[in-house]
Amino acid sequence: MELAKPVIALAIGDPAGVSPELTAKLVALEEARKAARIVVVGDRRVFDEGARVAGAKNPDVEFEDLKHLDPATIKRGVASKPGGESVLANYRHALRMVADGKAQAVCFTPFNKQAMRMADPSYDDEIRFTANVLEFKGVATEFNVLEKLWNARVTSHIPLSKVPSSLSIDSIVEALELTTVALRAAGFEPPRIGVAALNPHAGDGGNFGREEIDIIEPAVKKARAKGLPAEGPYPADTVFVRAQRGQFDAVLTMYHDQGQIAMKLMGFDRGVTVLGGFPFPICTPAHGTAYDIAGKGVANIGATRAALLLAVQMVKRRR
Amino acid sequence: MELAKPVIALAIGDPAGVSPELTAKLVALEEARKAARIVVVGDRRVFDEGARVAGAKNPDVEFEDLKHLDPATIKRGVASKPGGESVLANYRHALRMVADGKAQAVCFTPFNKQAMRMADPSYDDEIRFTANVLEFKGVATEFNVLEKLWNARVTSHIPLSKVPSSLSIDSIVEALELTTVALRAAGFEPPRIGVAALNPHAGDGGNFGREEIDIIEPAVKKARAKGLPAEGPYPADTVFVRAQRGQFDAVLTMYHDQGQIAMKLMGFDRGVTVLGGFPFPICTPAHGTAYDIAGKGVANIGATRAALLLAVQMVKRRR
Repeated sequence: MELAKPVIALAIGDPAGVSPELTAKLVALEEARKAARIVVVGDRRVFDEGARVAGAKNPDVEFEDLKHLDPATIKRGVASKPGGESVLANYRHALRMVADGKAQAVCFTPFNKQAMRMADPSYDDEIRFTANVLEFKGVATEFNVLEKLWNARVTSHIPLSKVPSSLSIDSIVEALELTTVALRAAGFEPPRIGVAALNPHAGDGGNFGREEIDIIEPAVKKARAKGLPAEGPYPADTVFVRAQRGQFDAVLTMYHDQGQIAMKLMGFDRGVTVLGGFPFPICTPAHGTAYDIAGKGVANIGATRAALLLAVQMVKRRR
Repeated sequence: MELAKPVIALAIGDPAGVSPELTAKLVALEEARKAARIVVVGDRRVFDEGARVAGAKNPDVEFEDLKHLDPATIKRGVASKPGGESVLANYRHALRMVADGKAQAVCFTPFNKQAMRMADPSYDDEIRFTANVLEFKGVATEFNVLEKLWNARVTSHIPLSKVPSSLSIDSIVEALELTTVALRAAGFEPPRIGVAALNPHAGDGGNFGREEIDIIEPAVKKARAKGLPAEGPYPADTVFVRAQRGQFDAVLTMYHDQGQIAMKLMGFDRGVTVLGGFPFPICTPAHGTAYDIAGKGVANIGATRAALLLAVQMVKRRR
């Protein structure tokens, strides 16, 4: 007997951008409907307006209608407090659906951080918000996924000057553990992870910095002793070239731009952001709300489609 | 009347790698011979062995034969002290030829730093060596050039932890001056330079670091007041995407890997390294000595050809 299709709670993102139309387009996709039972979370009127813009036909969409936002009150291309409030409510509701056993994964169309901060000045990022809603005490992290290449990082939104002192053997091993779990969930078996160095030329044997010798190499060694598939450290300017050639499934970078420079050049706007470490998969397109093309019906569904299919795959692997 | 062709002193690089065959291949190229009067600097026997490997015919090559290295004493694929000594002598001789008015620019086929350090343990890099030979007291820097995109950097071979404290308004303005001069020499008029930020999201208004506010923005402002074509700072993970789309001729990065991650992904192995700031152009292919394919005659001439043609162009613009 075939297992029932994964149920995905799909939260509508920022109403002033392309999120409503992407949500409607995704639900209308034959491929998406075949892969999952999608339950849209948001205001039905916002969805219907998105469907109108997208020219999408959604005869029998499943809906959790929160009835909290009339799209006529939202100006396209402008971040607003009511828009941000609706997004926080949609996303919170979607997370709780999985916590309550009504869905197995969450997807969401793009958020606008400015609008969310208008709605909640203490809003920091999706990871912290998610941990709060789920009362999750473990370690979570963000992965960037472009086709078959994953990128994880040890540090993220901190000044570059704080990066070296924020690295430790334990934080790197922990990131390698999270990455290994996520890659396995996504179907890589065994996964292969390339670890980036911190300094130019990987420190050139200590001439340009000692973090490779003192921290990163011992961390890779410790991770391998635990059976984690880590290799490196490799100079940051060659590790992505290796990955691009197929040598790795994931690159673990030491800081934000080290990975983002590479991923964005490779076309990460077409990619998927995965929140990893939580008890269930959370996936979203990597691109933003695209205020400049909102309401024109031209937004590309590719990354949103990839986010849904990745969430489905991760749910299936967990079973 | 047409001006005489630029005279390029072409130093043979490391004899254990692909440099001899690339030297011979370049001199045999019709396009190269048309563009410049090339004077090869090195041991004629090393050159002839390279020509044999490359299957290149060089009937009337101009030569400064230093008669210091029998290629039969060099093992392919192995860095050696005599090899390094020959390279230092070739390069020094080529630089002096220009200083003495016998040539207008220097090109060289790839060096092997390990061999050069065997020959001279105090050997640091090409920039310092060149400054010593020329008794040059000014500021010099390295540019990486891939097709129509240049990359310059404010700091280079230092630990990442030292980068933030090594940045200053003056060092950035100085780098913008050098870059502007080099771009003009290469034919960009007016040039357009994008400046990279240091911190993730360009510091996010000070949330993730203050160097953008305290140093980089004031530096860009000061440079523009001097008439230099600087724009930014832009987040490091988008500035190369902009450049790739044609918005800039050059990107000024704050540290080594920031530029190298991007340039290598874009195919910098096909590119050219330019030593800028000196009184004349010095160009070399960006790739290395490729010990693994030395002697097989398969080394691609593309980057070496590009290095010569760029040197020729820069000489012509200086006239």
